[in-house]
Amino acid sequence: MKNSISNHSEIMLPRLKNLIFFLVFLISAVISTSSYHPLDSLTPSELNQTQTLVNDYFSSPPQNVRFHYVGLDEPEKSDVLSWQSSSHTQKIPSRRAFAIVRVNSKTHEVIVSLSNNSIISDEIYNGYGYPLLNFAEQLAAGNLTLSYPPFIASIQRRNLKLEEVVCLSFTVGWYAEIKSSRLVEVMCYYLNGTVNLYMRPIEGITATVDLDQMKIVAFRDRAVVPVPKAEGTDYRSNSSVQDLVKQVGPGFTLDGHVVRTFFDVGEYGFGLSTVTLEPLKDCPENATFMDGYITSQDGSPVLVPNIICIFERYAGDIMWRHTEAGIPGQMIREVRPEVSLVVRMVAAVGNYDYIVDWEFKESGSIKVSVGLTGLLEVRGTIYTNKDQIREEVYGPILAENTIGSNHDHFINFNLDLDVDGVANSFIKNNLQTVRALGNTSPRRSYWKVNSQTAKTESDARIQLGSGATELLVVNPNKKTKVGNFVGYRLIPGVITGPLLSSDDYPQIRGAFTKYNMWVTPYNKAEKWAAGLYTDQSHGDDGLPVWSLRNRKIENKDIVLWYTLGFHHVPCQEDFPVMPTLTGSFELRPTNFFERNPVLKPSQYATDPQI
Amino acid sequence: MKNSISNHSEIMLPRLKNLIFFLVFLISAVISTSSYHPLDSLTPSELNQTQTLVNDYFSSPPQNVRFHYVGLDEPEKSDVLSWQSSSHTQKIPSRRAFAIVRVNSKTHEVIVSLSNNSIISDEIYNGYGYPLLNFAEQLAAGNLTLSYPPFIASIQRRNLKLEEVVCLSFTVGWYAEIKSSRLVEVMCYYLNGTVNLYMRPIEGITATVDLDQMKIVAFRDRAVVPVPKAEGTDYRSNSSVQDLVKQVGPGFTLDGHVVRTFFDVGEYGFGLSTVTLEPLKDCPENATFMDGYITSQDGSPVLVPNIICIFERYAGDIMWRHTEAGIPGQMIREVRPEVSLVVRMVAAVGNYDYIVDWEFKESGSIKVSVGLTGLLEVRGTIYTNKDQIREEVYGPILAENTIGSNHDHFINFNLDLDVDGVANSFIKNNLQTVRALGNTSPRRSYWKVNSQTAKTESDARIQLGSGATELLVVNPNKKTKVGNFVGYRLIPGVITGPLLSSDDYPQIRGAFTKYNMWVTPYNKAEKWAAGLYTDQSHGDDGLPVWSLRNRKIENKDIVLWYTLGFHHVPCQEDFPVMPTLTGSFELRPTNFFERNPVLKPSQYATDPQI
Repeated sequence: MKNSISNHSEIMLPRLKNLIFFLVFLISAVISTSSYHPLDSLTPSELNQTQTLVNDYFSSPPQNVRFHYVGLDEPEKSDVLSWQSSSHTQKIPSRRAFAIVRVNSKTHEVIVSLSNNSIISDEIYNGYGYPLLNFAEQLAAGNLTLSYPPFIASIQRRNLKLEEVVCLSFTVGWYAEIKSSRLVEVMCYYLNGTVNLYMRPIEGITATVDLDQMKIVAFRDRAVVPVPKAEGTDYRSNSSVQDLVKQVGPGFTLDGHVVRTFFDVGEYGFGLSTVTLEPLKDCPENATFMDGYITSQDGSPVLVPNIICIFERYAGDIMWRHTEAGIPGQMIREVRPEVSLVVRMVAAVGNYDYIVDWEFKESGSIKVSVGLTGLLEVRGTIYTNKDQIREEVYGPILAENTIGSNHDHFINFNLDLDVDGVANSFIKNNLQTVRALGNTSPRRSYWKVNSQTAKTESDARIQLGSGATELLVVNPNKKTKVGNFVGYRLIPGVITGPLLSSDDYPQIRGAFTKYNMWVTPYNKAEKWAAGLYTDQSHGDDGLPVWSLRNRKIENKDIVLWYTLGFHHVPCQEDFPVMPTLTGSFELRPTNFFERNPVLKPSQYATDPQI
Repeated sequence: MKNSISNHSEIMLPRLKNLIFFLVFLISAVISTSSYHPLDSLTPSELNQTQTLVNDYFSSPPQNVRFHYVGLDEPEKSDVLSWQSSSHTQKIPSRRAFAIVRVNSKTHEVIVSLSNNSIISDEIYNGYGYPLLNFAEQLAAGNLTLSYPPFIASIQRRNLKLEEVVCLSFTVGWYAEIKSSRLVEVMCYYLNGTVNLYMRPIEGITATVDLDQMKIVAFRDRAVVPVPKAEGTDYRSNSSVQDLVKQVGPGFTLDGHVVRTFFDVGEYGFGLSTVTLEPLKDCPENATFMDGYITSQDGSPVLVPNIICIFERYAGDIMWRHTEAGIPGQMIREVRPEVSLVVRMVAAVGNYDYIVDWEFKESGSIKVSVGLTGLLEVRGTIYTNKDQIREEVYGPILAENTIGSNHDHFINFNLDLDVDGVANSFIKNNLQTVRALGNTSPRRSYWKVNSQTAKTESDARIQLGSGATELLVVNPNKKTKVGNFVGYRLIPGVITGPLLSSDDYPQIRGAFTKYNMWVTPYNKAEKWAAGLYTDQSHGDDGLPVWSLRNRKIENKDIVLWYTLGFHHVPCQEDFPVMPTLTGSFELRPTNFFERNPVLKPSQYATDPQI
């Protein structure tokens, strides 16, 4: 998740020697914030130091420097492991920052030594695509549109009040254009009785803004479509429903079948979009909160309070149990309640809210969930009832004049597993039917496990289907006492693949979705499945391209890339705000322990009311 | 779930007019147990009345009557709906009991009128298969074996202590035998330092017992295999580990590749196996408990306390949320914590424990989960390390002398949905890729929803795969204000299909697993997917056979049959007791409500510490 803030998902990734240490590690990180871990996010003072060094570097002659990304430049993994194995007595590896800045319409990649207070390198990026958008320029593009005379005329023609209009910036994607500049499309929404602007799109009007020059380079007003009414759209508990403003337009022509596609992580920044969590509602009473920092356009750190919460969950579930009635004269019942540790963040990327939970169970299992909630993307329409619709409108009617757009979500996880050591192998356990005719058994078939160790990257590109494959990461150099390789397996949730053609532009750019699972050798430079510069990217950088090299992955330091997907056909229950829909996967120990590690009663067993 | 006790899953099934009423219905059923619902389980006095009437009926001449099933004979569904729509003022439909009894080695189906205190009908069942086993005869078969001289000699030859041996009865299945009798195979286990008998199988010995004659009809002692040691198998918190007893045998030949298959529901009775839940461990502190009754061999009711628990769950999850930063000068955050109602039962079918949860959410969603825990089925072996194994042993080595058998679980749910009325249709919404070359859009593809209404049963047999199909039940006679059919959709969890060949006997008997989903017209007689008489069944009765008629199901009273499955390759963490592995599916309102039904703050929002 690309961002410039305290990034919990990276902290969580089981990089280090022994997975089971992570629970302890995480808790200690909360309790003792003063002691460094080499993978800790940049502190506010480190962010300030980076800002000063970069600004100084570009100060003669003085130039306008805009910060788009500031984050930790991770130390070499070998240095982290060496520090870890020294029981933290070794000196911590040098701290470095990585900054992406725009200077004179060029993208600079700057590496800063914080330990030596100096610039290590500055390289201009000349490839396709642009860095993620910052808040200030998105806001400026909206304000520019609001003061643009043709836009004001369009609003007046619709009899809308300009002061009730809100404009937002949307990335433009890439559709085989040869030349590009840093453009966004500005689209606008109407408040006037609601805060749920997304349910009130002002259709037909788009302004195209060049972000580097901050000027409008194109403006269109194609057709007037009714703005869906405000009534019933407010989701606040204390909202007062105001009179609806009704607009009748002269007609409407649907503009092709544009399905907008966004790369939330790379274009807007999943971390940049992380929001403050509300105690007692976003997280339970027993939660502990951590603050985070994002970097503003001028490079200064901005505190975002309560950006992560951590809590122990007791949901009334059962970790394991058994009732034994088979022993004469005895009735045995043993039950262990399930208590787990949850680490949560929420990213509100425009209309959508993503709830990301990492749940650590006492059994050693790690469950990762993504909940989708927030507000739908809807389109205004002339239709007020499904029976009027005789054409393909790419989504169901949810309310009068409101079509909910069919869409997908794909969330990619970069899982740098080190199962009891760095050198690991990826194993596909295919459960296979075997015919058993002609032997002494009356059975005609059975199933067995056919284990295939992936030798190179192409062996580990997997489209999951019927659930008859187990996905396992083992350490082929370590065995349990009875001879099994120590391992963890990834248990997928609902399987979702892409529905677009491979040659369609959004699919070219998001080609990592073609497989649910990829495995690559660890490479510090390969971090984001869709590449580092996703705004207007061409799909020429990222996981599918890296993986073409078909590198060796057996008994190597390997990284799993797992994509969790959703197809979303909206329904009326999603209007005006969506009940959470959750997807998940699980990393579960599989011959990692010699036996069930939670046989003994939990400390919570006698007091489940934690 | 076939049983003779208070059956929560039936109570839960959304049979009646409006799904949303079920929460209220359920709570009122708990609070006011004195007032009848037509689908209430038989009360203890009704069970006693049935026992008396049936025994009287077979009393001249006096005969030995053994009860195998006693349950409610459900009234006609139309009578239940009529009673329901009268706001319960109508007289409740006549109460009837259905009993399956064995008399003189014949299976009788007896229907009893409780209202008129009389026998309505008695029919002898002459088809294949036998009723479910009762506890008394399973116990008797075990005791018979323990006192059988050849068995005692076998135990002595192994130098085992007879008083530490426990014997259990296992159903024998069907492998194309022409004639059959009510047989079980008795297999035995060794305690001597543990209560975890399942981890200590005494391999090589089987006694075959005729249950009607209660005599041993075959006995085999094929080979001596080491009994796995007791050390490390006890799962009790207060257990003391005793010295291990080590037995060395003369050698071992694997007996073909027998994969035992059980029909827990039909052979042993899922309800019969339901166990008492332990407060604070099986269910949280705020749980309310309900008792249940099972029927003993002589027909008398036996109280099982705390057989169901009901509790409000607050797990720290978020029902919906949104943070809105796009409106100048405002920061909006609205969050609703998720609080749901959980109804839980646990069935311990021999070694395995199944935790069945029905979770009712305020959003109208119903989530059904099955958690698998308890003890594995293992086999004794000569091997103490994987490296010694050169043959297929049908499962991994889990501990010294211990192989965990690969196996599957398939749990079928009979879901008699009535979505806002009895007449419903089943719709497959296939999400389809459409090529878009040659038009004005730069896009080359998009996806759309292709809705297919199932006309007959064959249209609704579905093998699920990539998740690009939505499964919807609608009322085609009712629309929302904007014209969508009111509906609920079934969201599957992990998809699992059978791995056995279609012509293999266990698969012939469990052929319902071939499809994840079937739809049939409602028929009171069609209740159990594998048929009513599953012990030694031939697969000639049950869902796959009924469905061959290919009946009309459009705009009819329809029933969904959904199968939740697991393939289980055991691992060392499952030894000696398995951390819970959970599968689930969800019934989610889809244009059932005009809009999100949980916009207003929950009563819990201000006090999540319920």
